[in-house]
Amino acid sequence: MKYTASELTIFTKHIFTACGMNEADAALAADVLVAADMRGIDSHGVARLSGYVRLHQAKRAKMNPEWKIIHQTPSTATIDADQGLGLTVAPKAMEIAINKAKQVGTGWVAIQNSNHFGIAAYHAMMALEHNMIGIAMTNASPLVAPTFSKERLLGTNPMCYVFPAGKHQPVVVDMATSSAANGKLEIAQRTGKPIPLGWVQDKEGNDTTDPFALSKGGALLPLGSAHDAAGHKGYGLAAVVDIFSAVLSGANYGPWVPPFVAFLDPLNNLPGKGIGHFVGAMRVDAFRPYEEFIAHMDNWIARFKSASTTTHNERVIIPGEPEFMQYEIRKKEGIELNEKVLDDLMKLGHEMQITFPS
Amino acid sequence: MKYTASELTIFTKHIFTACGMNEADAALAADVLVAADMRGIDSHGVARLSGYVRLHQAKRAKMNPEWKIIHQTPSTATIDADQGLGLTVAPKAMEIAINKAKQVGTGWVAIQNSNHFGIAAYHAMMALEHNMIGIAMTNASPLVAPTFSKERLLGTNPMCYVFPAGKHQPVVVDMATSSAANGKLEIAQRTGKPIPLGWVQDKEGNDTTDPFALSKGGALLPLGSAHDAAGHKGYGLAAVVDIFSAVLSGANYGPWVPPFVAFLDPLNNLPGKGIGHFVGAMRVDAFRPYEEFIAHMDNWIARFKSASTTTHNERVIIPGEPEFMQYEIRKKEGIELNEKVLDDLMKLGHEMQITFPS
Repeated sequence: MKYTASELTIFTKHIFTACGMNEADAALAADVLVAADMRGIDSHGVARLSGYVRLHQAKRAKMNPEWKIIHQTPSTATIDADQGLGLTVAPKAMEIAINKAKQVGTGWVAIQNSNHFGIAAYHAMMALEHNMIGIAMTNASPLVAPTFSKERLLGTNPMCYVFPAGKHQPVVVDMATSSAANGKLEIAQRTGKPIPLGWVQDKEGNDTTDPFALSKGGALLPLGSAHDAAGHKGYGLAAVVDIFSAVLSGANYGPWVPPFVAFLDPLNNLPGKGIGHFVGAMRVDAFRPYEEFIAHMDNWIARFKSASTTTHNERVIIPGEPEFMQYEIRKKEGIELNEKVLDDLMKLGHEMQITFPS
Repeated sequence: MKYTASELTIFTKHIFTACGMNEADAALAADVLVAADMRGIDSHGVARLSGYVRLHQAKRAKMNPEWKIIHQTPSTATIDADQGLGLTVAPKAMEIAINKAKQVGTGWVAIQNSNHFGIAAYHAMMALEHNMIGIAMTNASPLVAPTFSKERLLGTNPMCYVFPAGKHQPVVVDMATSSAANGKLEIAQRTGKPIPLGWVQDKEGNDTTDPFALSKGGALLPLGSAHDAAGHKGYGLAAVVDIFSAVLSGANYGPWVPPFVAFLDPLNNLPGKGIGHFVGAMRVDAFRPYEEFIAHMDNWIARFKSASTTTHNERVIIPGEPEFMQYEIRKKEGIELNEKVLDDLMKLGHEMQITFPS
């Protein structure tokens, strides 16, 4: 079954308002979620809608948080999200960053006491319409083992950098700092096929090709893991995201990041509040004239696109290009939901008395 | 043969002054280079000294550049390094970033028209004595093939993030965005042993274990390369570094970055000037009180250090820890130079009439 962005957005918005969220925030949260589906990041779209509702029902997320700026300078701010959803607080933090960048060239906002913020690219891409570079990162529930650790101490901690271009699409680097995304693991689980070495370790910390090793007490591995001693780089990047998002903001970090799933309780004696995000906006013309920058971005992109290639693909791909292509395809053809997600949404609609589009 | 930091610093300083560099800059450049040797980053220390001299002799680097700020806002600046060495201009750019951070919370400086800046960590770590977070990155001569490319279009483009801590050493993430550092490749070349898959591709773009494939027209691979489709992450990170360092500053990017070695000429029709760097400083107390931050950094570090481990190592390592350990060892025992480097330095000393310490 395929659905239009509009159908899924309306349904999602109604679910959030049924939870008591105000109209404007519900529209925003729905927009963030469906943007993920439109960009082909199915794991972060409406597939997660019931997860946010369960957090609300478990009283771990507030629908109408009284978020506030608790500290600021001309180029920085720290926000207490008051247990709101990152879906709605992160775009507001990004607006603050953009406004600071308008004033002093760059703006940087750390957010504590939040919940999952959807795809990082949504927030970072807000910078584009202001001719700015956008940055967004977040920490997440611990699933990743640092190099040499048996324990899961880090999330998949994505970092996202967005650079405007001229006639080409912007460059959008949006990546988990783990070796494999959870979504890829799920596909392997469905087919039962062995996974490549370097994605996951078993509970003893040994390399494994078992697609179910994570649910048996194993851990995801950091980016670079299969290489002799390059896994420490992915671990380092995940640490950078954790420290910016949480140690700097006052949120929980490392193993203390509260789980996204409401059926798992947070640990005791937490060192911070909720999960943390970090966003930034940099005015391009705070460094060089905007027209010059985008002309060179176009030159950069054109040169990479025209590189002579290996036999593995007919062309070098620009970071972010696959997502822009998915967006165009899904705008025409709609968004296909898999059976499990569809079933989950229909049950959710039934429970909240919101009609799922048919 | 082992040498003290002081012996190597004095020799290096004299070589630079013999090239006509002013005293203060020569002392600074020597300090940056020997800091690499002290931290165990042998590939970026005095081993590169003759390389800088050859660039000077080829009239591609100026010893006393008239660098200047060509654009600025309260939190940003762009510097034209006037073909100076990154060794001396990057610390000055970092000072500007630190001063801007003092004023408005953060400071960010893009540098064009520069040459190799040594180890990124030297510049980023300057933030520490000001209770700031430090960031440094640089692009570099093209040696890395983006995913699916046969051509080398990116450098090993390192990124460095430095976070102050309290009783523990700071967290220092300083990493090339390629899978393997050139230094590791050189070790494999000396022994002639096959290298792991995922480090290098041959000139057709195929995986190879040949340690000499790079010199036969192959390319280094981006971080994550050996994993099914995770190499695009390392490519994305290298792109981020290239864009910040060069597209934003007005330097050369991608395949146009001039080679470090003076015996290779830059390409024609360059789109920018020299190579580019990007540095930043963020006041911790622009986000939360400094004492709170370092207490939580200590907690983060202690938790990671005490994680239960796999059989591969007795303890989880904190990013930057091995370099602080090397520093302590070399402070006591001195810096060992390998035969090739020693020979190169002695020849250089003879040529410039500077006595090498014996």
